[in-house]
Amino acid sequence: MIKAGIIGSTGYAGAELVRLLMGHKDVEIVWYGSRSYIDEQYASIYRNMFELVDARCLDDNMEELCKKADVVFTATPQGLCASLINEEVLTNTKVIDLSADFRIKDVNIYEKWYGIKHQSPGYIEEAVYGLCEINREQIKNARLIANPGCYPTCSILSVYPLAKEGLIDVNTIIIDAKSGTSGAGRGAKVANLYCEVNENIKAYGVATHRHTPEIEEQLSYASGKPVVLNFTPHLVPMNRGILVTAYASLTKKVTEAEIREIYQSYYKDEYFVRVLNPGDCPETRWVEGSNFVDVNIKVDPRTNRVIMMGAMDNLVKGAAGQAIQNMNLMFGFAEQEGLMQAPMFP
Amino acid sequence: MIKAGIIGSTGYAGAELVRLLMGHKDVEIVWYGSRSYIDEQYASIYRNMFELVDARCLDDNMEELCKKADVVFTATPQGLCASLINEEVLTNTKVIDLSADFRIKDVNIYEKWYGIKHQSPGYIEEAVYGLCEINREQIKNARLIANPGCYPTCSILSVYPLAKEGLIDVNTIIIDAKSGTSGAGRGAKVANLYCEVNENIKAYGVATHRHTPEIEEQLSYASGKPVVLNFTPHLVPMNRGILVTAYASLTKKVTEAEIREIYQSYYKDEYFVRVLNPGDCPETRWVEGSNFVDVNIKVDPRTNRVIMMGAMDNLVKGAAGQAIQNMNLMFGFAEQEGLMQAPMFP
Amino acid sequence: MIKAGIIGSTGYAGAELVRLLMGHKDVEIVWYGSRSYIDEQYASIYRNMFELVDARCLDDNMEELCKKADVVFTATPQGLCASLINEEVLTNTKVIDLSADFRIKDVNIYEKWYGIKHQSPGYIEEAVYGLCEINREQIKNARLIANPGCYPTCSILSVYPLAKEGLIDVNTIIIDAKSGTSGAGRGAKVANLYCEVNENIKAYGVATHRHTPEIEEQLSYASGKPVVLNFTPHLVPMNRGILVTAYASLTKKVTEAEIREIYQSYYKDEYFVRVLNPGDCPETRWVEGSNFVDVNIKVDPRTNRVIMMGAMDNLVKGAAGQAIQNMNLMFGFAEQEGLMQAPMFP
Amino acid sequence: MIKAGIIGSTGYAGAELVRLLMGHKDVEIVWYGSRSYIDEQYASIYRNMFELVDARCLDDNMEELCKKADVVFTATPQGLCASLINEEVLTNTKVIDLSADFRIKDVNIYEKWYGIKHQSPGYIEEAVYGLCEINREQIKNARLIANPGCYPTCSILSVYPLAKEGLIDVNTIIIDAKSGTSGAGRGAKVANLYCEVNENIKAYGVATHRHTPEIEEQLSYASGKPVVLNFTPHLVPMNRGILVTAYASLTKKVTEAEIREIYQSYYKDEYFVRVLNPGDCPETRWVEGSNFVDVNIKVDPRTNRVIMMGAMDNLVKGAAGQAIQNMNLMFGFAEQEGLMQAPMFP
Repeated sequence: MIKAGIIGSTGYAGAELVRLLMGHKDVEIVWYGSRSYIDEQYASIYRNMFELVDARCLDDNMEELCKKADVVFTATPQGLCASLINEEVLTNTKVIDLSADFRIKDVNIYEKWYGIKHQSPGYIEEAVYGLCEINREQIKNARLIANPGCYPTCSILSVYPLAKEGLIDVNTIIIDAKSGTSGAGRGAKVANLYCEVNENIKAYGVATHRHTPEIEEQLSYASGKPVVLNFTPHLVPMNRGILVTAYASLTKKVTEAEIREIYQSYYKDEYFVRVLNPGDCPETRWVEGSNFVDVNIKVDPRTNRVIMMGAMDNLVKGAAGQAIQNMNLMFGFAEQEGLMQAPMFP
Repeated sequence: MIKAGIIGSTGYAGAELVRLLMGHKDVEIVWYGSRSYIDEQYASIYRNMFELVDARCLDDNMEELCKKADVVFTATPQGLCASLINEEVLTNTKVIDLSADFRIKDVNIYEKWYGIKHQSPGYIEEAVYGLCEINREQIKNARLIANPGCYPTCSILSVYPLAKEGLIDVNTIIIDAKSGTSGAGRGAKVANLYCEVNENIKAYGVATHRHTPEIEEQLSYASGKPVVLNFTPHLVPMNRGILVTAYASLTKKVTEAEIREIYQSYYKDEYFVRVLNPGDCPETRWVEGSNFVDVNIKVDPRTNRVIMMGAMDNLVKGAAGQAIQNMNLMFGFAEQEGLMQAPMFP
Repeated sequence: MIKAGIIGSTGYAGAELVRLLMGHKDVEIVWYGSRSYIDEQYASIYRNMFELVDARCLDDNMEELCKKADVVFTATPQGLCASLINEEVLTNTKVIDLSADFRIKDVNIYEKWYGIKHQSPGYIEEAVYGLCEINREQIKNARLIANPGCYPTCSILSVYPLAKEGLIDVNTIIIDAKSGTSGAGRGAKVANLYCEVNENIKAYGVATHRHTPEIEEQLSYASGKPVVLNFTPHLVPMNRGILVTAYASLTKKVTEAEIREIYQSYYKDEYFVRVLNPGDCPETRWVEGSNFVDVNIKVDPRTNRVIMMGAMDNLVKGAAGQAIQNMNLMFGFAEQEGLMQAPMFP
Repeated sequence: MIKAGIIGSTGYAGAELVRLLMGHKDVEIVWYGSRSYIDEQYASIYRNMFELVDARCLDDNMEELCKKADVVFTATPQGLCASLINEEVLTNTKVIDLSADFRIKDVNIYEKWYGIKHQSPGYIEEAVYGLCEINREQIKNARLIANPGCYPTCSILSVYPLAKEGLIDVNTIIIDAKSGTSGAGRGAKVANLYCEVNENIKAYGVATHRHTPEIEEQLSYASGKPVVLNFTPHLVPMNRGILVTAYASLTKKVTEAEIREIYQSYYKDEYFVRVLNPGDCPETRWVEGSNFVDVNIKVDPRTNRVIMMGAMDNLVKGAAGQAIQNMNLMFGFAEQEGLMQAPMFP
């Protein structure tokens, strides 16, 4: 039984960590951090946890926390984790950062896209990008995990096999993504009110969204070439779910069946990636509440493009679930422990 | 490890049985019955089960099924279970009927409200009304369970303590209930299309809904008096959840705190019933995906009425979860086994 | 052509006034008041008005406004209108107050339920309660209109004929109401975020909601007796619409057909009240975007109660539409002018 | 005052024709056609029209209808209009076909993508593609209008100026579109039930959707070159609205401001096309219920691509509104007559 602390436990991703860790047989939560609700009953803020969680919220005192917890999750806005991390912390505990602070290896790119000064650039090198399906071995030995962004997780897993195999021209990649509203967080903003989001769809952050360089970097590693792409997120009136529809030109004649075989071979041992049957498009409803990513591809011979599609739950595989999957790897637990829930429908 | 069969596994309640039983450590599903989809892959109909369920749908051959399964769930329209049940079946297997066929003790009332002839009235007497919090001991020894309706479960648990204690005038009970749309089933009807349900609320079955006599019968047992009440269901644009707002006049001067104490004493050993803190109203979002029923009361001294409120997930505690809770009791498993999921929010 | 000013034009009710007044042939809006967005382009806040409204937002300077406008709408939180009103204002302009400030004749009741001191109690007497179907003649000559609350409008019109006729025992009235989320306003609160409201239904303000005394007062006038009732509002995951389900015991034997005739006779000349056909329950989708109130009744001979139901659009008949209907009466325009839009579905 | 008939008046597009024509001062509806509901009260099917429409549904007898009506709208599945049209019909009345039958000039392409034999190919040549902003003059004199598809309307108007100016490489066009569920029609299908659509987003018809050749044909005319593109529609959990996010590579160095100027110059006299301010992305909520199309563009200098975006109401500008706009042109009415409603929000 290990002890876990959560900084930012009252955001949607933090709350999902609580929900999932409650079902994990080897973990006990010892710290419900929440700067906004210090001393309040956790279950008074998330009333689904009434009679299930008896703790009160604590502040984000990493110095104290790192001595009490074997693993610390930071589910906080960018900048915070970088400001808390240091050698003493990493000696005492393992850190899984759900923010963007350690995802991008080039600190200049981070600072440019995020518009803030990085407070601990010295740890970027050490941090492991926690996309388990790709970096499993390094994750096992890591002290500091950069848990991938929600859009990047779904985008990368949808495109990775073809980028790696060189079957798509990486200069032609366009990723059109759609997300449920929990991705926008629990902050009280007019733009996220029910009546503003409901009965609406919109693009946002067009050509400027911060997840762009993260996706580009990872696909560059895969393809061995610099990748510059278009990424366009959209806000969808639903609570959970991300859908990625990605386009790229094929570099050579290849059939849909051949491509599906490639996906199947890449993901055949991956419990959480499901390569769908021919003709089935991923839908967010089929993965809701679970750690699965459903992917599939469609070849359009008219345009010589392949359409790569992926669906997942942004709060699970896109945040808390993946963080726990990383934790499982780091502590030698079964990788699926605590993450075996079947998707809930409807 | 026991073997379970599901007749009607491709309706919403049947699919929820599948989802929940997959997480139950002592049960294996051996029969996915579905008259509409015979021979089709179950996972092609409910694609959340892709790579999780490998079976094909079977018909509703109870004769064969009862020899293969230790327990059979019938999640089918009223009339079917009554037409399948007989001594041989009940000798071979235990039956948990999610339809209304065995809920009402007076067959005339059943036939009048449901408008069909009962095919096996001889088993009504034996059947146990499977509201675990109230009939736990009888359930343990039953062969045939009448799994309560969704509205009745939430209504009865919300009102029961005060009816039992004689603190409300049972002639004044009014139950105004609201349900998510999964309660309407998966049949292809114009009235249940997305655009017809979305951005709308309506009452239906006003003064004539079939759950009325079921609620009345159970509250009569509780109060020791005949109960005739108004029950009005409403359709809400959401997938899951039932909310009950019930009204009754108090028979004597009693404070809200005293009533809450009564609720707490009735439900103190009930894991699945949560009596909320003063001032907190039950909300369906806080129980979604779980087997919990959240209840609370408010006394209005101006009118001398008490408002009794309850919220639960109609597909879990209102159908599949309660059926599994019954099964657990019948087979001597821990009552919460397979039902420990924390509610999922958002 | 008259000139209209709107104080609070950037709330949802204010924005609906703008939308509807744009279609009114005799009105020009000369003042888009909005304390939060002074000097900003109105169409940058409500982008549906892009290229349709060219004005910038102004403050709430009533002194100046009352000289420019023939009619002023105050679509602001309670207390503001009462603090702005005085003899000079009412000499210069007519005021239609969409807040609660002048709805309740007994200032003590107002101050108790609203928890604020009334700033101009001297004008309560003069103010006319602007429920056009009931107070049409007084409205025509009023200087100051108390535009009814959304819940009260729907509740009163649903119950009025039977209260007036003495056919229901007013001590037994229970009003269970359901509202879309625009009724909660455009303030940035966590409770009104998309993910908090979506997939949820809850009661709120149980036994304490401020619309209670307003409904009681008006039904007291109708019945000629003091009325104390239960009113329970619920929040529904949809943008617009209010549904009222009201219950009361009948005072004498009367058939549903007789009651429907009474409703038809009360409302036969009322364009905006539609008494539905037998068996049809009001639904909010059938009135969305329009000034209609759909009402119907159901008699339950088992309990000797009548269920009275009403549906309307909370932003139209429940706020802006009714305000314009009042304005039309005050200025001698056709009562339906600007309000003839058919309901929009889906 | 002209007389209009609607074949298919009980589908969503047909019902929107009814709603909008009711507000048109020069049109009277004389024929509510509906094969499924012959002899039923129209207002019993669309209860928003209670007390507004007194007619009963009629069949689709074009022979009789063409003698009674000055204009006939066919809002029916593909194939029906083509089977009804002939010289006598077109001599007697004008026909505006909301189906795809006359949109595509090459009958082989129509038959291949739609999988049916065209019943009256002789009229394809004569039919005018009713995208008013582009074909205004021809529409004025037409007898037979092919009313554009919903996706094509939004796609073409979003891309047209750059295709026409030769500023984008038409071989690189990718159109990722998102639609509300009313676009799927009112047929009773499991896939369109509330619980199946709600809390979900999915792509469908990937690389095979029938609107693809329609978009390609029109953009070919604009650019003067054959256009082959990718078009991917998605189903969004909302009632109304289409959002188009289109991508293409620029053929030469050009700034965003220069492109916006081009859009502004193309659409400066177009009342129904709004070119948004820099940085504002089109959102479906801002056009709901109206005939507007909001468009905007974003240049990404990193990839040398332009992202072209458009939003409109699929039932108005994408179907009924555009049909009325066509009718207005054909009969010499003001082009905006009956279409001046401001968008409704929220």
